[in-house]
Amino acid sequence: MAKEITARSEDYSKWYLDIVRKAQLADTSAVRGCMVIRPTGYAIWEKMRDQLDKMFKETGHVNAYFPLFIPKSFLSKEADHVEGFAKECAVVTHHRLMNNPNGSGVVVDPSAKLEEELIVRPTSETIIWNTYKDWINSYRDLPLLINQWANVVRWEMRTRPFLRTAEFLWQEGHTAHATQQEAIAESKLIHEVYARFAEDFMAMPVVKGAKSANERFAGAVETYTIEALMQDGKALQAGTSHFLGQNFAKAFDVKYSNSDNKEEYVWATSWGVSTRLVGGLIMTHSDDEGLVLPPKLAPIQVVIVPIPKPSPEILEVANRIKTDLNAKGISVKIDQDEKKRPGFKFAEYEMKGVPVRIGIGKRDLEKNQVEVARRDTKTKESQPLESVASHVASLLDEIQLNLFERAKAFRDEMTTEANDFKTFEELINDKGGFVSAHWDGTIETELKIKELTKATLRCIPDDAIEENGKDVLTGAPSSKRVLFAKAY
Amino acid sequence: MAKEITARSEDYSKWYLDIVRKAQLADTSAVRGCMVIRPTGYAIWEKMRDQLDKMFKETGHVNAYFPLFIPKSFLSKEADHVEGFAKECAVVTHHRLMNNPNGSGVVVDPSAKLEEELIVRPTSETIIWNTYKDWINSYRDLPLLINQWANVVRWEMRTRPFLRTAEFLWQEGHTAHATQQEAIAESKLIHEVYARFAEDFMAMPVVKGAKSANERFAGAVETYTIEALMQDGKALQAGTSHFLGQNFAKAFDVKYSNSDNKEEYVWATSWGVSTRLVGGLIMTHSDDEGLVLPPKLAPIQVVIVPIPKPSPEILEVANRIKTDLNAKGISVKIDQDEKKRPGFKFAEYEMKGVPVRIGIGKRDLEKNQVEVARRDTKTKESQPLESVASHVASLLDEIQLNLFERAKAFRDEMTTEANDFKTFEELINDKGGFVSAHWDGTIETELKIKELTKATLRCIPDDAIEENGKDVLTGAPSSKRVLFAKAY
Repeated sequence: MAKEITARSEDYSKWYLDIVRKAQLADTSAVRGCMVIRPTGYAIWEKMRDQLDKMFKETGHVNAYFPLFIPKSFLSKEADHVEGFAKECAVVTHHRLMNNPNGSGVVVDPSAKLEEELIVRPTSETIIWNTYKDWINSYRDLPLLINQWANVVRWEMRTRPFLRTAEFLWQEGHTAHATQQEAIAESKLIHEVYARFAEDFMAMPVVKGAKSANERFAGAVETYTIEALMQDGKALQAGTSHFLGQNFAKAFDVKYSNSDNKEEYVWATSWGVSTRLVGGLIMTHSDDEGLVLPPKLAPIQVVIVPIPKPSPEILEVANRIKTDLNAKGISVKIDQDEKKRPGFKFAEYEMKGVPVRIGIGKRDLEKNQVEVARRDTKTKESQPLESVASHVASLLDEIQLNLFERAKAFRDEMTTEANDFKTFEELINDKGGFVSAHWDGTIETELKIKELTKATLRCIPDDAIEENGKDVLTGAPSSKRVLFAKAY
Repeated sequence: MAKEITARSEDYSKWYLDIVRKAQLADTSAVRGCMVIRPTGYAIWEKMRDQLDKMFKETGHVNAYFPLFIPKSFLSKEADHVEGFAKECAVVTHHRLMNNPNGSGVVVDPSAKLEEELIVRPTSETIIWNTYKDWINSYRDLPLLINQWANVVRWEMRTRPFLRTAEFLWQEGHTAHATQQEAIAESKLIHEVYARFAEDFMAMPVVKGAKSANERFAGAVETYTIEALMQDGKALQAGTSHFLGQNFAKAFDVKYSNSDNKEEYVWATSWGVSTRLVGGLIMTHSDDEGLVLPPKLAPIQVVIVPIPKPSPEILEVANRIKTDLNAKGISVKIDQDEKKRPGFKFAEYEMKGVPVRIGIGKRDLEKNQVEVARRDTKTKESQPLESVASHVASLLDEIQLNLFERAKAFRDEMTTEANDFKTFEELINDKGGFVSAHWDGTIETELKIKELTKATLRCIPDDAIEENGKDVLTGAPSSKRVLFAKAY
């Protein structure tokens, strides 16, 4: 099966599509730009969602659900927001079909035209702040710490499964606070949660930083981002958290009376991650044999393959190992298919990214041992039967760590300083990855660099060192380095 | 607060809306017929979803996700289906807005008209079977046991929060099988799962049965339903499971080659429950003081109220009880608000339906006891401090059971046989509830009864006894009683 996957070195983009298709993560659909998320892909997303949901709840957030549709007029209430979002979206204009009077099938009933068109939400700030107006009166109603798991639609022209689709699944947090300070603290808290999730669960190292004004979310005062690096040297924006100031409160007239009974506008944040993370996960770890998954997000963590085929004796041992692993909270599949050969199965589970494979043969059993293979390094070794469960449990931890360390070493190796524009251009064009360079802080320079190199300013890293420097393009003074890269 | 809830006897419909509003379960939104599900309402739905999801997975199902949009032409591929569904729905005709050339705000860009209109899914049979065509080739690909958690839209004219909304959340299972027998068994299995969920978790007794041909799902060969009875004597269809025969496989040309290498059409089922269940839950148990929730679905199962206000000494005991209850898997809130009086808090938690309230006062502590109040019976008693956690744990079980028994006694009391049409009409008009009557099996009679009484045929119960009888309206021969009722 792996033979059918294009090598990364040959065509990275095709490699990605091959993995998505062959590991049965997603399919194209009959609707332009919308994907079907297949059970394996959805199981990965479920694991991500459950973990993130837990982290949001641990930090005091609750879930709610707001309408799919947004009245058209809402979008133009916040001036920057409409510029950034209102254009490419799905517009509902009618609410009824009727039998075609001139033929077969159904047609739109012209008499069922909506008075005001509805937009399928591209993001929900406007409908949510219109609701918060009713929920917030006094400082006692604050903070409101609400998250929503939902589907959203942005009519993208060029789509790619998970990474950019017209419809995608995501969570969007929308919080309301009494003070600027609290709102900023909230947006930074979530920024930390996203980074921790990416690194500890996805095993995907990220750079934490702030977006430049030009790359900020439409309507935000500040956008915090986590940026990951894919194996082709392109950056992926993996999660953003926005401090929205009082922009949406002013647009939707949301005020609260403070403890002195004085009315003030509410402060806001919003933040989101999406099924795009599944794309990031695939591209961070997978190889030319197929998907590689960090154990913490693998729907099946261990597969047991009887060799050459299931016998009652092998299955008995397999079930015992499964019970022991299940007791440790590890998910296990025993492959009982009698028709496929072990070699075929090995390749199939490699392709599907199962982190650990246990092979049990008759000769192994005679020696009271089994064969344990790890997906990340493609190494295998014999293990005594009696300790296999505890060995596999610690092996899964080791794999999780190894994937992170490997990705981090790659990312570090692919992060290079440039102190003049010739070097900068060469790095972007030839080596790829993050280029760390001084920037004079102007949108003009940022746009000029993009025009010349296609690299965008990914972020101003949180841990950037204050130093005197000169902008890599203009030579104007700069106080810190920022990261540029070509990006998804 | 309870004072603001209309009594059921006064205006049942207003009572329901009062509970939804005052217990902060849902709000109306700026979009016609779409509700906002508030955190408390969503937490109940989450508990339902998690439990159902577990039951689906235990019976071998996996989750996936299909597009929100359905190409218009798909809807007319299955003739009965389009009759039942295609009419009142949200139609996307354009994919772009633009700045209003003649004023402010945004307008639909006329140049961005879609070639084929897209329908926001009212249910997903068509888009899913169009996908299954690619996934199914051989008998080895079957069965496909897939479920989806999603939002759907049906452009309802008269809406009511949870019970009937333009957009609602639901799960829809769509399975594909090699044989008719397997597909029927699947639809019956889910029928059982739904009944078990309703009774064991929602504490809502249901009648299991089949729908008449007239009430079947559009495109189904057989529809199994669970029917519950609300406190106003109206029935609520709570969950349906459909055997679809080969209708959708034929409409979308989905064939598989059997073990003899012969091509056959695939057999199908679909099944769903929705946020409507939250409405059913509210209406089954709640009273004039507010929401009543079965412990298994209550987001907060126990609230601890310090009397008259939190002191270090009371909080220490409260925290100890909380720790003990948490260890038993019970969710607990300690109310630390110093500004509200205990009486106010008692009324508030009654209104919000928290199953058990523990009051801790200074005098209680001197006697090493606390006061335990149950929401269902509104009784309270003193309990020794040392055994309060184990007492509350078994009390929660008792409340769960009591709610079911109480609802079942009501349902049984409100199920009456009618053997002539005068009695039938009187029962439907005056007493309400389920009327058990003989029916001649014709659509004509069913429709006539509906026209005369507004009662619909809710179901042909699975456990109906075979007996010779005469149709309650026409006198034509009948072999079993069926249930009629006015319904939501």
